[in-house]
Amino acid sequence: MLLGATMSTVPAHAQVSTDVIITAEALRDRAMAGSGAFSIVESLTTEVGARMSGSPADARAVSWAKAKFTALGYDRVYTEPVVHQVWRRDHETAQIVLPYPHQITITALGGSVGTGAQPLSAEVVRFASIAELKGAPPASLKGKIAFISARMERQLDGGGYAPVVAGRTDGASIAAEKGAVALLVRSLGTDNNRLPHTGSVIYATGRRIPAAAVSAPDANLLDTMLGNSQHVDVKLDIATSTATHYSSENVIGEITGRDLKEDVILIGAHLDSWDLGTGAVDDGAGVALTMAAGKMIQDLPVHPRRTVRVVLFANEELGYDGARVYADKDASTIEHHKIAAESDWGTGRAYMFRSAALNPALASAIGKVLAPIGITTERIQGTPGPDLGALAKKGVPWVQFAQDATTMFDYHHSANDTLDKIDAAALDQNAAAYAVFAYMSAEMSGDVAKKSK
Amino acid sequence: MLLGATMSTVPAHAQVSTDVIITAEALRDRAMAGSGAFSIVESLTTEVGARMSGSPADARAVSWAKAKFTALGYDRVYTEPVVHQVWRRDHETAQIVLPYPHQITITALGGSVGTGAQPLSAEVVRFASIAELKGAPPASLKGKIAFISARMERQLDGGGYAPVVAGRTDGASIAAEKGAVALLVRSLGTDNNRLPHTGSVIYATGRRIPAAAVSAPDANLLDTMLGNSQHVDVKLDIATSTATHYSSENVIGEITGRDLKEDVILIGAHLDSWDLGTGAVDDGAGVALTMAAGKMIQDLPVHPRRTVRVVLFANEELGYDGARVYADKDASTIEHHKIAAESDWGTGRAYMFRSAALNPALASAIGKVLAPIGITTERIQGTPGPDLGALAKKGVPWVQFAQDATTMFDYHHSANDTLDKIDAAALDQNAAAYAVFAYMSAEMSGDVAKKSK
Repeated sequence: MLLGATMSTVPAHAQVSTDVIITAEALRDRAMAGSGAFSIVESLTTEVGARMSGSPADARAVSWAKAKFTALGYDRVYTEPVVHQVWRRDHETAQIVLPYPHQITITALGGSVGTGAQPLSAEVVRFASIAELKGAPPASLKGKIAFISARMERQLDGGGYAPVVAGRTDGASIAAEKGAVALLVRSLGTDNNRLPHTGSVIYATGRRIPAAAVSAPDANLLDTMLGNSQHVDVKLDIATSTATHYSSENVIGEITGRDLKEDVILIGAHLDSWDLGTGAVDDGAGVALTMAAGKMIQDLPVHPRRTVRVVLFANEELGYDGARVYADKDASTIEHHKIAAESDWGTGRAYMFRSAALNPALASAIGKVLAPIGITTERIQGTPGPDLGALAKKGVPWVQFAQDATTMFDYHHSANDTLDKIDAAALDQNAAAYAVFAYMSAEMSGDVAKKSK
Repeated sequence: MLLGATMSTVPAHAQVSTDVIITAEALRDRAMAGSGAFSIVESLTTEVGARMSGSPADARAVSWAKAKFTALGYDRVYTEPVVHQVWRRDHETAQIVLPYPHQITITALGGSVGTGAQPLSAEVVRFASIAELKGAPPASLKGKIAFISARMERQLDGGGYAPVVAGRTDGASIAAEKGAVALLVRSLGTDNNRLPHTGSVIYATGRRIPAAAVSAPDANLLDTMLGNSQHVDVKLDIATSTATHYSSENVIGEITGRDLKEDVILIGAHLDSWDLGTGAVDDGAGVALTMAAGKMIQDLPVHPRRTVRVVLFANEELGYDGARVYADKDASTIEHHKIAAESDWGTGRAYMFRSAALNPALASAIGKVLAPIGITTERIQGTPGPDLGALAKKGVPWVQFAQDATTMFDYHHSANDTLDKIDAAALDQNAAAYAVFAYMSAEMSGDVAKKSK
């Protein structure tokens, strides 16, 4: 492809030539015909599997990612160290003791403290929501286990997550303030499986109490007993451990720009996963589709002008440490990031491109290329995903592909997050979207983004 | 209701009066409007839960059943002792060791021996079916773990179970003959959950090797590795224990017949469950709907002529011991059983009445009452369920309601068999079917069944 060899049919102010569009369409069609993303996530979940940062598998994941970028032919493959605190689940069991004995399935929330040398037994007090818990009188939970029974709603965009996530992240500290000895939350999930969903707890200052998620059927069992105004005692035995210093790595693959090498178009995902599943949906899908998108750009006969950088962030799940380290660069380096997009919302089809940050001409041109694969382009801004938050704060503009997350929360953060949950065709469609976006952004003349804040 | 008070509109040879039909229709409609079955299965799964025969919960289940029959107002509630051998799951873990380390989710098959003092590590050899395993050369599995990877098909009638069940029951002995040290089977289930399905193993004479089911996603993982012709080593650590003498009880509730008291119309289900779930689908549903059906007959202003007996059999899952003891009565007692039906096929709607054993006039009359609730009546015979097998061998005639089992094997024998899987409306429809069948059989003049064999 020779720039300027063809008369552009796009108005001059749009700064996106017909050649660029033709190449973008070819990338799109190639991805839709088979982007290679499925074989990447199959490889990651088979050869590594569960890879919580700080676990032995985390190092295997880093090695895997370096080898995979290299095998895919990326121009440059490198890592940057990410030192962070490690949390580990050692064991976790729970029983309903009264009024009727039952084993129940729980999982400690990431970062939770354990129950100590002895298991903990206490009466359960139920709250319909975190708001109701906040409204409980001071000291009213002394010696009790607080149980937040709020159910997550299934929604196309996964929007049922936001209203319940604070119960998981903040519930323990709020309950502790009122004297509680532990927190149980109904799993943040849309399934009816006996598989609890983990996720991180964020302790405020103050007393730290054990916090765990209960599977949906077991939460129902508690609801039934508590709904009959019965006195319910639960016994928890949770052991966890922490270590203060572990060095993981962000793994980065680059397609070097043709002339504006220093300018970076960033696409990324996180390499780590929770320990319960094999991290296929979260975030093997994002890893696979961004790696596949970059590889298709790498394979173009002529590379785009700017550098396309695929960043696989370390330890998203337990503290966004990879994102923090990545963003903690000097201002001039950060300034070279022209636009960024991350993929961390499962394996469903992309249906909307939130493009507000982009140069309108570029957004419009990308929109035309992606419309045939079911993606509408809107001039709206979402909220940045977990791994772009730190970059966004530093002024890096970002865009977002909204994905169908109807079934994502059936599996998210649970042992059920495995390869069979991956929709290979949807993965290809996402890879097409990221390839088109990254390529066109990397190639266009003029400002990629409207303006950094 | 006074028999003979109304002119029958049914031909004389049919022996089913209009009054009987009117009462049967009223029973049907009452059941469809709310049979009370759901509250029974909710009570059983909440107040008892998992109740493997021989476990402490088994005795609680027996107490629960006696109390529930009594509370429902049954004329007579009694038990009969069932002495049997006990098997217990102590612990079970498994890892793929080579080529990539993974925790995998397994569950020991009921009756399986353990792996001994040390965990067992061995290479896995895959077979597509039990037929393929049978065809393996003698001694070809020496020191290996046999893995049967056959997938169960989802079918309306649950017919996908039969082709794969022999792998679970007989696979261990066949593999042992060829030198294997353990058997793994892909879970007999139609789900994609990280929850293995147990079920009993039946050892032939010869060496007993540990046998376990692998969850579907983990079986996929093995398939992926083995499909790449990789050497796969698995480590199994399974401990189980047995006891030779435990006394459980069949729990029986009766509605005493009006004049032919000694004649018995038997409906039943099994009270025990596996240890993993709370036994809602298997067989809390059957317990609930037969108890509810009987209760509606009990509540009739005039009881039918014959006795309706609801039998909750002990220890179906691990040896059909309750059924064996129940059938091990003297011939004259057995002879009084005019017809029998059991419910042990989950919670789906009944769609067909296999009525071959019934007096044709009675079958036809029942069929007319049940047709409006979606049940066709066919003059065919199925195969008896597990708790009627022993009675059937002794010549007791039996009939069967075929149920929609499309989703049953998503949950069957797994930790996912919990109350939320129960379809309350379908349970009412089944209760209607059993109430109509039992009442009309108990009331009719002449022979209930065509003839005993």
